Amino acid sequence: MSHTKPTILFASTTFSEAPWIARIKSCAPERVVVTKPDPSVEYALMWKHEHGSLKNLNQLKVIFSLGAGVDHILDDPDLPNVTIVRAVSPDLTARMSEYVVWQVLDHHRKGRHFRALQQASDWQNSDYQPAASAIKVGVLGLGELGQDSAFKLNALGFDVSGWSRSPKQIPSIDCHHGKDGLDTFLSQVDILVCLLPHTEETTGILNQVLFSKLKTSGPLGAPILINAGRGALQVETDILTALDQNVLGAASLDVFEQEPLAAHSPLWAHPKVTVTPHVAADSDPDALIGKIIEQMIAFENGEQLQNLIDLNLGY
Amino acid sequence: MSHTKPTILFASTTFSEAPWIARIKSCAPERVVVTKPDPSVEYALMWKHEHGSLKNLNQLKVIFSLGAGVDHILDDPDLPNVTIVRAVSPDLTARMSEYVVWQVLDHHRKGRHFRALQQASDWQNSDYQPAASAIKVGVLGLGELGQDSAFKLNALGFDVSGWSRSPKQIPSIDCHHGKDGLDTFLSQVDILVCLLPHTEETTGILNQVLFSKLKTSGPLGAPILINAGRGALQVETDILTALDQNVLGAASLDVFEQEPLAAHSPLWAHPKVTVTPHVAADSDPDALIGKIIEQMIAFENGEQLQNLIDLNLGY
Repeated sequence: MSHTKPTILFASTTFSEAPWIARIKSCAPERVVVTKPDPSVEYALMWKHEHGSLKNLNQLKVIFSLGAGVDHILDDPDLPNVTIVRAVSPDLTARMSEYVVWQVLDHHRKGRHFRALQQASDWQNSDYQPAASAIKVGVLGLGELGQDSAFKLNALGFDVSGWSRSPKQIPSIDCHHGKDGLDTFLSQVDILVCLLPHTEETTGILNQVLFSKLKTSGPLGAPILINAGRGALQVETDILTALDQNVLGAASLDVFEQEPLAAHSPLWAHPKVTVTPHVAADSDPDALIGKIIEQMIAFENGEQLQNLIDLNLGY
Repeated sequence: MSHTKPTILFASTTFSEAPWIARIKSCAPERVVVTKPDPSVEYALMWKHEHGSLKNLNQLKVIFSLGAGVDHILDDPDLPNVTIVRAVSPDLTARMSEYVVWQVLDHHRKGRHFRALQQASDWQNSDYQPAASAIKVGVLGLGELGQDSAFKLNALGFDVSGWSRSPKQIPSIDCHHGKDGLDTFLSQVDILVCLLPHTEETTGILNQVLFSKLKTSGPLGAPILINAGRGALQVETDILTALDQNVLGAASLDVFEQEPLAAHSPLWAHPKVTVTPHVAADSDPDALIGKIIEQMIAFENGEQLQNLIDLNLGY
């Protein structure tokens, strides 16, 4: 039995290395961590790595994504054929639900309207405020993230429905599924929250055709889009057209077709758009690394890894 | 047994009459409703009535407040000595919690910061975002409203404590009470949510001395004040001084010493203040009138009224 632990590669073009390396060293001081591809690498911890950089890593056994999404890994044409593990942690899930609840409440409670009144020193409080129970929030995607958001919105009194690829049964949530269930789901939704993974099937799903199927008679005037899933799910020209035609009443976008969002994008200054720079659910080294090291130890003991990616589904 | 039902007075200087009268007529078509004081009046439904207008109502038996607060009633020097009932409804409570959760999340998730970045078309996402569990939200006042807000904040992952005049035990909430418990409570709080009633004891409680006792070492930089209780609880000059000296990091105020807030108030334009025009928990006729009519019927059948005001406590 060898006493040398497998080498770990940390590879990200967007995360700053220091806190991740520090956390790995603190959780597993006996393990070697490298930040450049090296033939000894057996595990790779990755978030938006440089494509092609893994192709000669013949010892590579497991890739751990440092976020819920894995599209940034699967998009690499030179990806070695190894096991891929998604990051699932109560911390990541809680952060995403914070963002979703924050944005749903900001639309429901007319944040934009009241900020404009404040800017004009204008006291007006006679506007009709519907109760949360009069608002149907529809969550697209009922994985870990979607379910947690749905529960928390429901606890605040919102009427919550959800849609997923395969059938799900979730207490208090009106669940729809599959291609056949999508239109019915959309037709009832006042606020659409998208937490889908990015796959071939979901690319560009947030488009004019989908927007035109949303409920138009709700108390908010026009339906609202919140996308915290992936930028590739949305067609930004369609979002802009839908906003300008009042097919959508407003949008909160945390993700974009191209990130960083270009300074010349009309989304920045659009009066109905809330832009955040992909911060809905930050990956926190303190919350994620411990679990990844636990999985490495389990793997080395011949146990089954958790949260594996199904390459056929693409998530 | 008389077949004539007691006359109901609707009296408010700020609510528009029509939806309230319509709802009373729909719930109790057999009852007479007046909007001017009349000697036949036995019940008064009130929100900020004209002081002195009740003094000759010799048949008046019960006053129903159309909101959670009753200070607007007790402040009338010509108030007849009759029973006073507070509005308590799941709807009112849920609306208040929506406002509280919305504002807590907007501070926690740096809404002001990200809105400024958006305005500058500036993509920056490297800021440290603490987890909700790293933030202590302290709720001042643990009545119906305070408890519901505390539970909902707790469900989102915040570390929640509460303070009340008399001792309370609430699952998952770190409860403090009385004058002796206040300083310890304040010393641990990152975000202070005030939902106290307005009484002689609480007038001006949100002042420099109290602000200086809040936690200064939290992950938000400086403590944050959210007041959705009553304007008379706060000393606005002290809030402005505390903000300018970074004793407070920011404030969300839904209530003010004088309402409407004067156009020349420096609170409107202060870069660290969020002003909303007393809309945290609107009274909805549809949600409140049914319960008030039920209470009238119970009272006429000799049963005990609920949610009575204790005149010694002033709430």
